[in-house]
Amino acid sequence: MADPRFFLTTPPKTLAELAGIAEAKLADGTNPDQLIADVATLETAGPEHIAFIANRRYVRAFTESKAGAFLVEPTLVERAPAGMAVLVCDKPRRAFARIAAAFHPEETPEATIHPTALIDPSARIGRDVGIEAHVVIAANVSIGDGCRIGANTVIERGVELGAGCVIGNNATLSYCLIGARVQIASGAVIGNTGFGYDLDASGRTKVPHLGRVIIEDDVEIGANTTIDRGSGPDTVIGRGTVIDNLVMIAHNVRIGRGCILVAQAGVAGSSILGDYVTLAGQVGVANHSTIGDRAVIAGKSGVLSHVPAGAVYAGYPAMPIREWRRLVGQQRLAYKGKGSKDE
Amino acid sequence: MADPRFFLTTPPKTLAELAGIAEAKLADGTNPDQLIADVATLETAGPEHIAFIANRRYVRAFTESKAGAFLVEPTLVERAPAGMAVLVCDKPRRAFARIAAAFHPEETPEATIHPTALIDPSARIGRDVGIEAHVVIAANVSIGDGCRIGANTVIERGVELGAGCVIGNNATLSYCLIGARVQIASGAVIGNTGFGYDLDASGRTKVPHLGRVIIEDDVEIGANTTIDRGSGPDTVIGRGTVIDNLVMIAHNVRIGRGCILVAQAGVAGSSILGDYVTLAGQVGVANHSTIGDRAVIAGKSGVLSHVPAGAVYAGYPAMPIREWRRLVGQQRLAYKGKGSKDE
Amino acid sequence: MADPRFFLTTPPKTLAELAGIAEAKLADGTNPDQLIADVATLETAGPEHIAFIANRRYVRAFTESKAGAFLVEPTLVERAPAGMAVLVCDKPRRAFARIAAAFHPEETPEATIHPTALIDPSARIGRDVGIEAHVVIAANVSIGDGCRIGANTVIERGVELGAGCVIGNNATLSYCLIGARVQIASGAVIGNTGFGYDLDASGRTKVPHLGRVIIEDDVEIGANTTIDRGSGPDTVIGRGTVIDNLVMIAHNVRIGRGCILVAQAGVAGSSILGDYVTLAGQVGVANHSTIGDRAVIAGKSGVLSHVPAGAVYAGYPAMPIREWRRLVGQQRLAYKGKGSKDE
Repeated sequence: MADPRFFLTTPPKTLAELAGIAEAKLADGTNPDQLIADVATLETAGPEHIAFIANRRYVRAFTESKAGAFLVEPTLVERAPAGMAVLVCDKPRRAFARIAAAFHPEETPEATIHPTALIDPSARIGRDVGIEAHVVIAANVSIGDGCRIGANTVIERGVELGAGCVIGNNATLSYCLIGARVQIASGAVIGNTGFGYDLDASGRTKVPHLGRVIIEDDVEIGANTTIDRGSGPDTVIGRGTVIDNLVMIAHNVRIGRGCILVAQAGVAGSSILGDYVTLAGQVGVANHSTIGDRAVIAGKSGVLSHVPAGAVYAGYPAMPIREWRRLVGQQRLAYKGKGSKDE
Repeated sequence: MADPRFFLTTPPKTLAELAGIAEAKLADGTNPDQLIADVATLETAGPEHIAFIANRRYVRAFTESKAGAFLVEPTLVERAPAGMAVLVCDKPRRAFARIAAAFHPEETPEATIHPTALIDPSARIGRDVGIEAHVVIAANVSIGDGCRIGANTVIERGVELGAGCVIGNNATLSYCLIGARVQIASGAVIGNTGFGYDLDASGRTKVPHLGRVIIEDDVEIGANTTIDRGSGPDTVIGRGTVIDNLVMIAHNVRIGRGCILVAQAGVAGSSILGDYVTLAGQVGVANHSTIGDRAVIAGKSGVLSHVPAGAVYAGYPAMPIREWRRLVGQQRLAYKGKGSKDE
Repeated sequence: MADPRFFLTTPPKTLAELAGIAEAKLADGTNPDQLIADVATLETAGPEHIAFIANRRYVRAFTESKAGAFLVEPTLVERAPAGMAVLVCDKPRRAFARIAAAFHPEETPEATIHPTALIDPSARIGRDVGIEAHVVIAANVSIGDGCRIGANTVIERGVELGAGCVIGNNATLSYCLIGARVQIASGAVIGNTGFGYDLDASGRTKVPHLGRVIIEDDVEIGANTTIDRGSGPDTVIGRGTVIDNLVMIAHNVRIGRGCILVAQAGVAGSSILGDYVTLAGQVGVANHSTIGDRAVIAGKSGVLSHVPAGAVYAGYPAMPIREWRRLVGQQRLAYKGKGSKDE
């Protein structure tokens, strides 16, 4: 499945090995020594592949699949076609992710420092660090053990990275303290001054931004995303939060742990997100808003002030999604009731 | 018209030459030897310029124009002011584009490889390739004949570019196979891992993204746009599709031929666009959506599932634009009927 | 308050000095020789700090603050707790910004040209210019006195920068003429060709973009923002306008003086904004729109054609905000009237 120009492929593995990797159980009668060569999708899998089913919508394709083996939930075991090996687990998607990673381990770039990289003598560089070409590392920067820094990336004065971080190409990191195992994709700009002015008819005074960006462990940040530093308080991204491409996080924003911010979402200044909050794509959050733990904001919605913990909101201004769905439904009914025809 | 600091200007041309370039016909009585020095807009053109009219809204300005010559549709020939030379053609805007390109040909950067560019010995570089300063080209990359690669751009392992591609500055290309004559503007990030996780209370497992980005011939991609690679299937951009700045294309998305994606649009994972689809600015398409051939989605709309071929949709959730227009109109009428005054 | 890894801190200052910097007046009985060590926020300030209050919402926190000194409006002087020194001024936020800048002056990078920077011999470089590593400056570029150019930035042929500009890292400037004291953040792409095509069933002709980007004095442009050059007319950003991160400005757009464009806003081709216009975050402006002086467009709104001077608009399509608020309120009332319960 994986193009060898881009991905490594490890040798075939027995079902017993795969069950170990996936923390799955072989269904009764399955041969533990059967060899599987690779992962594949439901539709494309052949006898040498293992696939998975995580959604009942695909049961039919599952029952007709030619895959040699499948990762399935307990309730679907009986639906497997004759001759297919079955690995039973509670979370087939997660199990598949682990097996895929075992067949195609990510290649870590070498832990070498390219001679064109410019590293200030005062910078502290850990062990087993890889730094690509034309990287610029300024005074008093600290890079933890095992980090990888992509080509043409600039790390400004005083920035600290914990162990095991991976930074893409052409990124800029400034005014930030970054935890362990953080991944920042190419083109991201972290630590720029916030967009804060005192304005009136007599002109504009830029408010000095004296805060930092604090990025906790295990955060992931997408390509060309921008995170501004705080104005005095810090901008904070909590542990394990994942942020997609082209997202904007403004000054003083505090994001909790385990949040998910999908592409092109934007969070305005001084807003606070709790833990495990989800912002779907293109969501906007107005400044000084608060969003409670585990709240979910549907795509393109606009949060103007407060969303309670656990709520699912949609629309603009954002409201409980059940309310929004009925509102949208009623609008369309009202329209149709006036005698027009759908296109 | 064109600032010589930025654009070349070729010598004046006769109307006969211009008619040839534009595939236009000289109107009766036009002197084929009349010289024109440059293109200009309707409002700014003088006797030495050629302009065009493509929209009836501007007929009055046309009849009062001082331009030496005009490109016009057949139906407007009679409205030309006395003494103006007229070139008749079906598509004046397209004809004008060709004449503008003849007066101001794009300067191709030289086909030289800057000594600071770092090119892995295993990379295959075609003939007449230009590679600017500080470019990094990794192992097994293939660059087709006549390509131009802008400064500080990074091309990761295994990437292939067809002939005649033009890549801007500070871009990152990875995990992608690119056709001929593709243009990718500065700051674009192609091939980053998709935003796919298996999440639950016990934590997060990153789904390995083992697919690629396939970009077919004659595609154009704007500045700071991001296109993620597939999770197993590929992300595909069909032949001749044009994508504006700051657009997000997620993993596994398949876009057909000749589509137009305007700035800040976003397409979520596994969605499918047919051929000749238009997404206007800031449109969002939810994951697993399908949009039929030649459908048009109005600016800022949100597509949640399916748009039929040929339809014009607007709103959020997107609906047929006729329906949306009436709905918006009724809302405002209802509001006004309650006795309030417009501001 | 400010982390010494990132910010300079100057020595303590007397209240008399601070009053001079802030153009504030010491309240009666204040000791002009009292020393203040730093600025701080309302909540975190101690006896050695000066803070400010600009919003009556925080009066309670003010009356309980432990700050040594406060910047307050005349009407709040009497509410100050006993023992707190008070500096009276009309604009406490602005005064605070000035004092913060005095305690933590921005460190200007050195006016040196890094040996890895590539500067075409025909380029004109002013006095006291700082150019960081791996910068590429092409033929006939002109850089004014006192400019600072960040690492890995590319400045294409013919571009001109006035005195005192500050450009970030990994930016691309092309086809543009830039005034004095302009700030452009990392990753911005200025001067790319506009997104203009002549399209029909027979194919696509790219319209040559022969205009420029004109950026007047004192403009600020955020990270990863993109501004396309004009198609013949120029794209113009007026004096003192500030543009946040990830904003898109299309070809031929004309933006007046002192405008504010918040993050992820987008302005489509040939639209015109007057002076002192505000576009809040994620606003979209359709092409050929006009927005009058001092108009304000609320976040996420979509402007389809015209907004009068001084108006405050919201919604999509954008309407007077008072109208939009009532419309939204009525919709929710109508919905609630049908017997459903809020979540």
